[in-house]
Amino acid sequence: MSVLLVGSVALDSVITPVEKHDDLLGGSASYAAVSASFFAPVQLVGIVGEDFPAAHVEYFRSRDIALDGLQVVPGETMRWTGEYEWDMNVRHTRNIALNVFESFSPVIPDSYKNPDIVLLANIAPALQAHVLDQIADAPVPPRFVIADTMDLWINITKGDLLALLRRVDMLILNDSEARLLTGETSLIKAGRKIQAMGPRYVALKKGEHGCLLFGEGAFFSCGAYPLEDIHDPTGAGDTFAGGVAGYLASLPKAAVTFADLKKAVVHGSVMASFNVEAFSLERLRTLDPAQMAGRFRGFTEMSHFADGSL
Amino acid sequence: MSVLLVGSVALDSVITPVEKHDDLLGGSASYAAVSASFFAPVQLVGIVGEDFPAAHVEYFRSRDIALDGLQVVPGETMRWTGEYEWDMNVRHTRNIALNVFESFSPVIPDSYKNPDIVLLANIAPALQAHVLDQIADAPVPPRFVIADTMDLWINITKGDLLALLRRVDMLILNDSEARLLTGETSLIKAGRKIQAMGPRYVALKKGEHGCLLFGEGAFFSCGAYPLEDIHDPTGAGDTFAGGVAGYLASLPKAAVTFADLKKAVVHGSVMASFNVEAFSLERLRTLDPAQMAGRFRGFTEMSHFADGSL
Repeated sequence: MSVLLVGSVALDSVITPVEKHDDLLGGSASYAAVSASFFAPVQLVGIVGEDFPAAHVEYFRSRDIALDGLQVVPGETMRWTGEYEWDMNVRHTRNIALNVFESFSPVIPDSYKNPDIVLLANIAPALQAHVLDQIADAPVPPRFVIADTMDLWINITKGDLLALLRRVDMLILNDSEARLLTGETSLIKAGRKIQAMGPRYVALKKGEHGCLLFGEGAFFSCGAYPLEDIHDPTGAGDTFAGGVAGYLASLPKAAVTFADLKKAVVHGSVMASFNVEAFSLERLRTLDPAQMAGRFRGFTEMSHFADGSL
Repeated sequence: MSVLLVGSVALDSVITPVEKHDDLLGGSASYAAVSASFFAPVQLVGIVGEDFPAAHVEYFRSRDIALDGLQVVPGETMRWTGEYEWDMNVRHTRNIALNVFESFSPVIPDSYKNPDIVLLANIAPALQAHVLDQIADAPVPPRFVIADTMDLWINITKGDLLALLRRVDMLILNDSEARLLTGETSLIKAGRKIQAMGPRYVALKKGEHGCLLFGEGAFFSCGAYPLEDIHDPTGAGDTFAGGVAGYLASLPKAAVTFADLKKAVVHGSVMASFNVEAFSLERLRTLDPAQMAGRFRGFTEMSHFADGSL
């Protein structure tokens, strides 16, 4: 089964205290799609300008990412410049030029039929909802719908976001966003409060502290992989979401269970842990399944402490 | 086997945004000893004044905590007043009166022979070292020595602390203390750097984010139990340390392995999660083994995600 995925496609400039790189492949959809493609075929919906490098298009194709829904229009591709402090948890957006993204209206092509897993990567909630509108009449409803979001949408389009939350199975957001959305200091209270807003499941990302997964009467805590050096945190959240969606799409099952979601957030964490080891998507370009399996085992060893005989 | 434990015994006043309680049983040794006593007999070393309530002495005795090493001297027991903000991660010490503790010199009585697990709960590193000096000639060396510490000692007696670190098997400290001790922002780098200072194992506590355990080429990440309401965080770290030491003492083994330590920090986390549910040691007074086992199972469910067949 495949992942239907909508989000932004951008060209990034990223500055860290030790390096600066320009014209990098970026955007929430790029990271999420490449990550998901390690588990299942991906159907991408997005927009780029005529300046978008052919090499990036070829890379997407090489990853079995369908591009029928990638609009190529006159004008320039979205551009983003971000700078990290020594404490890489602190990021500043130095510049953003929406360019062709400003007039983006996602269109689901006929070739993207029967979406199985839907990942609404981080873009405005009204655009995410517009994707759901277009698949509302699908003969078989999608098995699982995941939305990612960010503080910007909580601040400026909270109504749209709250409306979206009633239509998705799972929301992914980070700790400060969860606090902003709910007004709760406790992340446990925040997670439970977001579930009451609609999604049965909430994945709450905490950066270096891993992530929390909230289900119906269920809870899971996933640590972060112990990396000593992080080269570029950009796209970690998108790569996480892509890994979650891709893993779910790879399961030959009718319904998604909490046990499936536990493994999904671990696979998402594995993908994010690789992604931050190099700029842009560079690390994923050389990633192979044996490395992924090795790190999944690493997560098992660092999380499991008892046999089943308790 | 038993736990030899040194630390402070105090009478606390604790203020939270919703409650205030005075004359509470407190101090690092009190919390750690009661916690450890759920797993193994405890031998306490500490000091109190003649004002120390007989009821607290009786409570210790009822928990099978030996008090031959508890000095009762003329004067007043140490007193501490702390106040928590709405965000209970933020604590202010409002008042501290060392009283009889000011002239404390720990003495290991002859009756505390053959210490098995030694827990040097949070007091000045010179006093912790003095305990190790007194058991240096024991016919059988202790199986495992654990030290707890705090920012105060890193700031004012760092030399003493560094000397102590070369004599212990494991250091327990929290995230901000690890950063202060090492100058590293990354907790992974900090943990590894502390290992290089002496202790083979480091347990790095992160409050609501759980804790990290560093071993020789090994790593474990333990989440925090998902509590929606915390009534009094005082003593959480001491209760954690007591649970770790007590569990290790309960194992009928010659050597402590990393697998043992994984379970030990989970048991420590279980004890801390109960302790913060009420003021002082009130929750532990009513705790029973079935409740402990239930929460240990809860930690398993929230941490394990795959069967052993990977």
